[in-house]
Amino acid sequence: MGASERPIAAIVLAAGKGTRMKSTRHKVLHAIAGRPMIDHLLASLEVLAPAKTVVVVGEGREQLEAHLGGRADIAVQQPQLGTGHAVQQAESALDGFEGDVLVMYGDVPFIRPETMQAMIERLRAADAPEAVVLGFLPEDALQYGRVIAEDGQIARMVEFKDADERERACMLCNSGLLAAKADVLFELLGKVGNDNAQGEYYLPDVVNIAIAEGRNCAVITTDEPDEVSGINSRSELAEAEARWQKSRRAQAMAEGATLVAPETVFFSWDTRIGSDVTIEPNVVFGPGVEVADGVSIHAFCHLEGAKLASGTSVGPFARLRPGAVLEEGSKVGNFVEVKNAVLGQGAKANHLTYLGDATVGAGANIGAGTITCNYDGYFKYRTEIGPRAFIGSNSALIAPVKIGADAIVAAGSAVSRDVADGELRMVRAEQLVKPGWADRFHDAMKRKKAEKKG
Amino acid sequence: MGASERPIAAIVLAAGKGTRMKSTRHKVLHAIAGRPMIDHLLASLEVLAPAKTVVVVGEGREQLEAHLGGRADIAVQQPQLGTGHAVQQAESALDGFEGDVLVMYGDVPFIRPETMQAMIERLRAADAPEAVVLGFLPEDALQYGRVIAEDGQIARMVEFKDADERERACMLCNSGLLAAKADVLFELLGKVGNDNAQGEYYLPDVVNIAIAEGRNCAVITTDEPDEVSGINSRSELAEAEARWQKSRRAQAMAEGATLVAPETVFFSWDTRIGSDVTIEPNVVFGPGVEVADGVSIHAFCHLEGAKLASGTSVGPFARLRPGAVLEEGSKVGNFVEVKNAVLGQGAKANHLTYLGDATVGAGANIGAGTITCNYDGYFKYRTEIGPRAFIGSNSALIAPVKIGADAIVAAGSAVSRDVADGELRMVRAEQLVKPGWADRFHDAMKRKKAEKKG
Amino acid sequence: MGASERPIAAIVLAAGKGTRMKSTRHKVLHAIAGRPMIDHLLASLEVLAPAKTVVVVGEGREQLEAHLGGRADIAVQQPQLGTGHAVQQAESALDGFEGDVLVMYGDVPFIRPETMQAMIERLRAADAPEAVVLGFLPEDALQYGRVIAEDGQIARMVEFKDADERERACMLCNSGLLAAKADVLFELLGKVGNDNAQGEYYLPDVVNIAIAEGRNCAVITTDEPDEVSGINSRSELAEAEARWQKSRRAQAMAEGATLVAPETVFFSWDTRIGSDVTIEPNVVFGPGVEVADGVSIHAFCHLEGAKLASGTSVGPFARLRPGAVLEEGSKVGNFVEVKNAVLGQGAKANHLTYLGDATVGAGANIGAGTITCNYDGYFKYRTEIGPRAFIGSNSALIAPVKIGADAIVAAGSAVSRDVADGELRMVRAEQLVKPGWADRFHDAMKRKKAEKKG
Repeated sequence: MGASERPIAAIVLAAGKGTRMKSTRHKVLHAIAGRPMIDHLLASLEVLAPAKTVVVVGEGREQLEAHLGGRADIAVQQPQLGTGHAVQQAESALDGFEGDVLVMYGDVPFIRPETMQAMIERLRAADAPEAVVLGFLPEDALQYGRVIAEDGQIARMVEFKDADERERACMLCNSGLLAAKADVLFELLGKVGNDNAQGEYYLPDVVNIAIAEGRNCAVITTDEPDEVSGINSRSELAEAEARWQKSRRAQAMAEGATLVAPETVFFSWDTRIGSDVTIEPNVVFGPGVEVADGVSIHAFCHLEGAKLASGTSVGPFARLRPGAVLEEGSKVGNFVEVKNAVLGQGAKANHLTYLGDATVGAGANIGAGTITCNYDGYFKYRTEIGPRAFIGSNSALIAPVKIGADAIVAAGSAVSRDVADGELRMVRAEQLVKPGWADRFHDAMKRKKAEKKG
Repeated sequence: MGASERPIAAIVLAAGKGTRMKSTRHKVLHAIAGRPMIDHLLASLEVLAPAKTVVVVGEGREQLEAHLGGRADIAVQQPQLGTGHAVQQAESALDGFEGDVLVMYGDVPFIRPETMQAMIERLRAADAPEAVVLGFLPEDALQYGRVIAEDGQIARMVEFKDADERERACMLCNSGLLAAKADVLFELLGKVGNDNAQGEYYLPDVVNIAIAEGRNCAVITTDEPDEVSGINSRSELAEAEARWQKSRRAQAMAEGATLVAPETVFFSWDTRIGSDVTIEPNVVFGPGVEVADGVSIHAFCHLEGAKLASGTSVGPFARLRPGAVLEEGSKVGNFVEVKNAVLGQGAKANHLTYLGDATVGAGANIGAGTITCNYDGYFKYRTEIGPRAFIGSNSALIAPVKIGADAIVAAGSAVSRDVADGELRMVRAEQLVKPGWADRFHDAMKRKKAEKKG
Repeated sequence: MGASERPIAAIVLAAGKGTRMKSTRHKVLHAIAGRPMIDHLLASLEVLAPAKTVVVVGEGREQLEAHLGGRADIAVQQPQLGTGHAVQQAESALDGFEGDVLVMYGDVPFIRPETMQAMIERLRAADAPEAVVLGFLPEDALQYGRVIAEDGQIARMVEFKDADERERACMLCNSGLLAAKADVLFELLGKVGNDNAQGEYYLPDVVNIAIAEGRNCAVITTDEPDEVSGINSRSELAEAEARWQKSRRAQAMAEGATLVAPETVFFSWDTRIGSDVTIEPNVVFGPGVEVADGVSIHAFCHLEGAKLASGTSVGPFARLRPGAVLEEGSKVGNFVEVKNAVLGQGAKANHLTYLGDATVGAGANIGAGTITCNYDGYFKYRTEIGPRAFIGSNSALIAPVKIGADAIVAAGSAVSRDVADGELRMVRAEQLVKPGWADRFHDAMKRKKAEKKG
């Protein structure tokens, strides 16, 4: 089997406590751009089509296993005796696997697939290094372990605290990420000891052991040091989110969207934005949003699981929830919530409305203050509104109910039975007129108010 | 005619494709602070009262001509053979014009009038230069063409790619902006050739030609390099917007407004803000807003075309649309939309309300959930609410309708006929009481729910 | 009396005009994080339990006295003849006080208690300096007065304009803050003259006078130069706010809250946030908010005076006003306002609702568009909703009113009388059906529209 035909496996270390997160949630399940960080990593790994992915779990393993739900093999590290020990726990899950192994970290989620690929390719190069370390050149190298290397050949891996002055002056740092052939990796790991202050087995020792045996180990250096940033606290989580958003905003603009104030727009990992889309300040995208060309998203909108066809307009102050589908030229205005509802072409719901579990026909006009009453405390029901129907303001449509094509619902009506095509439905009591009553009321209340004060 | 009496003309180049914008909209029509960039430029030019302004159009000329609507002369450049060629296209529009010409760019919209003026004044100085170039000293001069000059006298204009090391070390860059007497400009342009890699006629060549003829050309340097920033992509558009906003916010604060979080407040080009105005985080101004002294604008507000008198209070979560007029001491609260409506002194609409095409008298109280039903699908109608009227919550006022002074509309009423002064109007059905019905319903639904699961 | 037993007094200078604020409000009453700046300072002083605090007022003294309301002694400086003169005005208020005096500034509100304490401790050290000056090392020392000192012993205080080149090169600047024993302070102040260009009495002169007499004066240096920043304009106010917010956000994250976009979250001075709280972008806290563990605050929320129990969820687009209490697991959704109202365990108000002056029982469901009508123009009334009650959409509950346990209010009902436990209340007119009416209306209106155009 030639090197290029060797399968790839990934070991993802995710056994740490994440103490600094101060969270009952597993560290790698904290989200960036609406997606748990481990899922970002697994998605990037997918690009390499690994034959096997083993996630090494420890603390909070139940949460993590439940989240992964069979998407990866699980290896348990209990107790946690260092990174080398952690990788070793994946050995049995990789029993019989002959190929290249990438060691990744669940809390270093933004390694690019091309970087992973570069590590693998380096491993498969003609000089066939025993291991490939991913190095990086941070702006501030202070506390990182150093990779002492020349021409990409590692001379020594050294922890910062053990490094001498000359070694510390070397700015190439160890990301912790490593690639090696499975058999070599586990053979070397077997030789790693724990004769150190913490009594732990360190993964970088495999490199030093190989070198001590006269074997060849290589380092490649990422040109984007941010991709190896680990996330160990909520601040680092926020910084990673900020980096992700900044990059995503730049991409949206490069693809032809206007972001009036890019720093106030928050995308989700899977947001899709067309060209000539205008996004005003303060727009938040949850997962699952698709925005076609030429859409206007006004200020203060929150969108999630929604599809916006071309020429639609949303907000300001609109909330689209999952299942919201806005067909061409339709419009959702201020203080309007749309959930699991389709607005047909050119339909409008401009003010103070709740459309839930509904179908709105093309050209229909939903008046201000319209509510679809879709829930009776136990079940949800649908409202169907025909094309060109006109729903008067402050109406309640009590589902299940159908409003016919061209039908009109008079303002203030609570409609509990279907309305036929072309029909007017009015649900309104008599106008009770009490001349002078208000004047007398004002007089009485003013007296009462005066008495209370007096 | 003395130099100071010479009229001024402006040539604005706007023929470029704007490919990097990836837009169907003409580049110079993209907006900053709610105003198309070319309009920013034209407004600044206005300060110099030019006798003539010629906009040179090419790609997308229909859009641009429609937008300008006669505010400027149009010259067409088709095909586009460089900046020198573009300026030449304006010659016939300036036929007979004897005076000074400023060459501007539609995508360099933030040249200050004082800079334009300084160019003109330099042109008119005693040494009477043939042309005046606007130079700038960018933080990073990398790719810009250089102006090789001593004491403001140009020795040579040189494209970066043609510059030698010594020339590149000169940090004075060419903004592209130029002033010259009309006859000189077109005479020199006639001598410009296109013997270069792109086969284009370059405007800076007029300077080199003049110099080669032993004539005198001058450069002046802006002390605000940002003003010559060109906008060629959505990112640059966003950067220009950010610069504009930053400057406008500083101005508002200097004039006595409190911006709790200036970076979250977005002004429009024409926003007017009084002193002792407080603006909380996240406020967006569309065009046409005037805010008097002592106004409070709470968080999450969107205002457009609105006038706020002194002592008014808006938001949080308020939307004022064009024609909203808030008289002294009136108040608009959360989830309230006001469009083409006047709120009299001290009137209040505090919650979940739509006031459209309405007049609200002084001291009136608009209850939560009130909707003015101003549209029947075809026409708009007005609602008039008298002073001190009290509109009960969840009412629908079906326009055209008048509510008298001191009148009361009972909660939940859909009012379709006028209410007299001091009258109570109640539109409410009987209270239908069904004892035990809810208990039976709960039992039935719980059974049904259990069956569905079972 | 040993030095460590000496009482402490504080003199807070707040007599300045604050001209650059351009405000009718007294400078030190402008707020940061929702709290007037002088209150920040007084709260920090409280940590030292001063025996007396004297605020020196001048311009706008009525406002300031009204605000302080007896929390501090008042001394009046009128006219204002310099900082030395200002401190002197506090002498009679401190008549008989024997102890240490801290001189603070109302517009330098963020001095940390530990810094104040360090000044006092230095004053009480074995070498017993006559005065202790707080120095700082700003990034840009340009115009500040310098403290010429060696090993913490002051050689000379010098105004920038009077400093020679060598003195200007000294980067230790005078914050203006000073500590001294009361008797020493006033003795020295008595010797300060006003023989200078402004004819003012300068506080730093007390140090130079003491030194001239061969007495010992000390300087200590803050390691956080920001704490001595003065606030003289709205821009500086905004900068102080930004610094405060940045620090508070970092603290919230360190304590275990996720802030998706920290820069968009605005805390109040007294906000309390638990761990595993998630705060989405664009959330504004007014004063008085307590958030328990595990709460989700979605985007675009405004909270003030609210208590959120664990497991509650708020927003997006929610507004909680003072008195809002969300019990465990309750939920407030979009375009919902809650004021002076308790939501029981698991209760839900998900859409377009106003709950004011209300009690909502555990497990109750408040339908979309529900309004509690709590105000009749004169008085406020309460709405009580029983556990598990179901309020149908678009209902108006006209307080005072009680809805019983498990009761159901039909959609669109305006409920004006109590509803018993387990009862159904429906307030709804007949469904008036007019077949074909809408079709005829459309025809008529289309004709009318055509006529208007024609």
